[in-house]
Amino acid sequence: MTLLKAFLSSRRFEAVITALIVINAITLGLETVPEAMARHGDLLHALDRAILAVFVLEVGARLVAWRLDFFRDPWRIFDLLVVAVALVPATGNLSVLRALRVLRVLRMISIVPSLRRVVGGLVGALPGMGSIMLLLILVFYVFSVMATKLYADSFPEWFGSIPASAYTLFQVMTLESWSMGIVRPVMEVHPLAWTFFLPFILCTSFTVLNLFIGIIVSAMQEEHEAEASADREAMATEQGAMLEELKAIRQELRDLRGKIDGSARAPE
Amino acid sequence: MTLLKAFLSSRRFEAVITALIVINAITLGLETVPEAMARHGDLLHALDRAILAVFVLEVGARLVAWRLDFFRDPWRIFDLLVVAVALVPATGNLSVLRALRVLRVLRMISIVPSLRRVVGGLVGALPGMGSIMLLLILVFYVFSVMATKLYADSFPEWFGSIPASAYTLFQVMTLESWSMGIVRPVMEVHPLAWTFFLPFILCTSFTVLNLFIGIIVSAMQEEHEAEASADREAMATEQGAMLEELKAIRQELRDLRGKIDGSARAPE
Amino acid sequence: MTLLKAFLSSRRFEAVITALIVINAITLGLETVPEAMARHGDLLHALDRAILAVFVLEVGARLVAWRLDFFRDPWRIFDLLVVAVALVPATGNLSVLRALRVLRVLRMISIVPSLRRVVGGLVGALPGMGSIMLLLILVFYVFSVMATKLYADSFPEWFGSIPASAYTLFQVMTLESWSMGIVRPVMEVHPLAWTFFLPFILCTSFTVLNLFIGIIVSAMQEEHEAEASADREAMATEQGAMLEELKAIRQELRDLRGKIDGSARAPE
Amino acid sequence: MTLLKAFLSSRRFEAVITALIVINAITLGLETVPEAMARHGDLLHALDRAILAVFVLEVGARLVAWRLDFFRDPWRIFDLLVVAVALVPATGNLSVLRALRVLRVLRMISIVPSLRRVVGGLVGALPGMGSIMLLLILVFYVFSVMATKLYADSFPEWFGSIPASAYTLFQVMTLESWSMGIVRPVMEVHPLAWTFFLPFILCTSFTVLNLFIGIIVSAMQEEHEAEASADREAMATEQGAMLEELKAIRQELRDLRGKIDGSARAPE
Repeated sequence: MTLLKAFLSSRRFEAVITALIVINAITLGLETVPEAMARHGDLLHALDRAILAVFVLEVGARLVAWRLDFFRDPWRIFDLLVVAVALVPATGNLSVLRALRVLRVLRMISIVPSLRRVVGGLVGALPGMGSIMLLLILVFYVFSVMATKLYADSFPEWFGSIPASAYTLFQVMTLESWSMGIVRPVMEVHPLAWTFFLPFILCTSFTVLNLFIGIIVSAMQEEHEAEASADREAMATEQGAMLEELKAIRQELRDLRGKIDGSARAPE
Repeated sequence: MTLLKAFLSSRRFEAVITALIVINAITLGLETVPEAMARHGDLLHALDRAILAVFVLEVGARLVAWRLDFFRDPWRIFDLLVVAVALVPATGNLSVLRALRVLRVLRMISIVPSLRRVVGGLVGALPGMGSIMLLLILVFYVFSVMATKLYADSFPEWFGSIPASAYTLFQVMTLESWSMGIVRPVMEVHPLAWTFFLPFILCTSFTVLNLFIGIIVSAMQEEHEAEASADREAMATEQGAMLEELKAIRQELRDLRGKIDGSARAPE
Repeated sequence: MTLLKAFLSSRRFEAVITALIVINAITLGLETVPEAMARHGDLLHALDRAILAVFVLEVGARLVAWRLDFFRDPWRIFDLLVVAVALVPATGNLSVLRALRVLRVLRMISIVPSLRRVVGGLVGALPGMGSIMLLLILVFYVFSVMATKLYADSFPEWFGSIPASAYTLFQVMTLESWSMGIVRPVMEVHPLAWTFFLPFILCTSFTVLNLFIGIIVSAMQEEHEAEASADREAMATEQGAMLEELKAIRQELRDLRGKIDGSARAPE
Repeated sequence: MTLLKAFLSSRRFEAVITALIVINAITLGLETVPEAMARHGDLLHALDRAILAVFVLEVGARLVAWRLDFFRDPWRIFDLLVVAVALVPATGNLSVLRALRVLRVLRMISIVPSLRRVVGGLVGALPGMGSIMLLLILVFYVFSVMATKLYADSFPEWFGSIPASAYTLFQVMTLESWSMGIVRPVMEVHPLAWTFFLPFILCTSFTVLNLFIGIIVSAMQEEHEAEASADREAMATEQGAMLEELKAIRQELRDLRGKIDGSARAPE
């Protein structure tokens, strides 16, 4: 078991897997080129299946080696899902599932440490954004219901249902064609529509801005924290040395006093 | 009275209200689905009225319990307004007022502490932006009047009146279709229109950027301030200890001097 | 002269001018409303002229009172220009010059201290951006000349001359319809046009981003600097006190030594 | 050799080159004006060739003077490339190569120190963005392959091949016409297309945001670092002084003790 673990964690094995991912990325890309498919379609498919087989064996071996500990590392679960997704379309014929096989290339993230660190950092920033995300969802829900109630009859394509309204409002939030494409046409039917859309834009822009600021401030905080604690330590060391010195001086004084007491008593 | 206050502030009561808001959010959402309305329209309306009745009773009870103090907490005023808005359409038939009932779902913000904190933070950032907002409004007014004077005749739809110009300039500020949609057509009639719009875009972008920077800096300042004051305190404690030590040493020296004076005089 | 200066700088006089600016802003706005012009056109014009007369007198009085020192305060020059602009159209009939009269409302900035401070801050951020602005202009010039050489023949409307290309590239930089409106049509004639536009977008976005970051960092720096120097001062005071104490102790020791020398010699 | 180096690095020579670049920028710009070409076309071409000749001589002289050290300074390589590019079209007739001659104006960056510093700063920020750029490229590749597999048949113009998909996704990432121009038409054929594009927009926006934050934080870090180290030094000096004082006091005490020991023994 430990031997298997050591083998699976070895640098050489990881290099092989990385190489296979790169090769797989290329074959998956070539599958979209009609000429390549016409000439080497069989080879590409065979390569793809062979690499998939290696990945299945690898993830299986990891499952055997780590057992339940396997599920402790989110990256291993990520690998499992990405390989599992690739297995499903092998049995079906749906183009969507076949497209999802490409996600396998994202295994690169779990293999390359620097990418893993970056994604870890991005995901780590999410929990701190919880409340503000909840607020954004709440605002979206309220405005979507209102938009559906107000404009569903006149613009069924844009505001026909709550999901349709939510999509349109997301588009408005990204400021894409919000005025020429959406609000001006709506205002031709409902002249006061700007009282609905302008507050929405201002609210969501301001909220998203604060989301960004939150991430910036916390990122800075972290950097600063690390540096400040190093600073504090250095200062503590320095001040510790001075306190030591002071205590030594005091001790010296006490000794001296003892001496003087002695010398004062001695002549008596 | 205190019993009523305790009841209204109890965790259990808040949980009930939160649950009612969630249920109300769902029923209000379902009202936009034609099939749901066709089948369970009566039930949805009945539920909506029942929940509204509970909210009215709750806000009424709060008014009785806190009396004038009720108006000291902005969140209670927010609740009052949101419930009051929901009462108005019950008497009318206007679709706008019916849509405003959905605002009731925003009570979620005043109930959930983390949301309340986030919104409080957002609103708290506004006063610091006062002067820069005033400047932005002034710039908008001046440019709107100018745009109306210059382009009202050629483009009445976009610049026919000051509000129309302000709306169009807001669109230009968000950079939505500013060139292909607005400025290029205007330039076909007034070839020098870019001397009006480019400075406007640069001015407002720069002002809004500074608005953002102001918020970022003040957010950071706050965080930093808190940390720095903790730092300063720690350092003050440390230095206080050292000063104490120094004073003790000086006292020791004074004692010693007294001793020596004594011992020097003693032999005489 | 000092009397005139005192009068022109008095709070009451400033309040009167502020009120006149607000009234002027309203009359200038009303001039764009056809009904208002039809009914009270003469009154509005009379008011406008009267207020302009007051402003001319005021700026004239300031010129007399401060003489050449008048030109030392940029805000006074701003006032002079804005009033002078308003004088020019009084003799002409051009709609552009009449529109420029509205700039007079911007005098609000030079009168209200908080606005003056905000604008001062914005303008003060500009010099630090000098090099990066120069770089941006250089990049714009080079890309404009190249775009004109490459695409003037196929798209004379967008790239017919260097100014036209610069305007189009500015639009591309703001990302407004850059792809659907400009680059996709261009790519239909010059399939490799993306090798020109994508680097341009990346370069200018990155440069503008760095412009923003520069402003953010320097704004923060300033705030931080102020705080840090306060900190440093507090610490210096604290450490100064400690050094004082240390010197006092040393002096005490020297005295003691003198005493002991004396007492040691005394018995001899 | 050192004489040549001194001449090439002299302020006067640099001023001449700067002047030539400015003149060249103007002549290259004038070449795009048909009237200027009709009248003074020969003069403009002659000037351009003459300046190019000077540049070729200059770069050649630098090559002779510095030999292999020439390639140690990236700016000299930049100059070499920019002049070399200008030489190629002199032999050909391709409009693209002729357009590239304008890049020669960018030599301004390598001549003016403040521009050189700004660009150096921009380029210096790139390596720290390595991992996040790699992640972005990976995400783009995966999404491009998927988009090609899913939408190539229905929208060959936008998603016909991996490069076409990558371009379209870049457009979507910049939010340009993403909804009205791309996603809404796609959704008419594939109603679930939003499950592909919305995650893409959220992922890439979040990643690019983090890229920006990374640059902001590191820029700040640098500034802060410099300041903090100055602070730390000042404090170290201060504390060093105090430690010195403390040591002096201790020495004094030891001397005193020696004295007392002596005076105590003396009377014996």
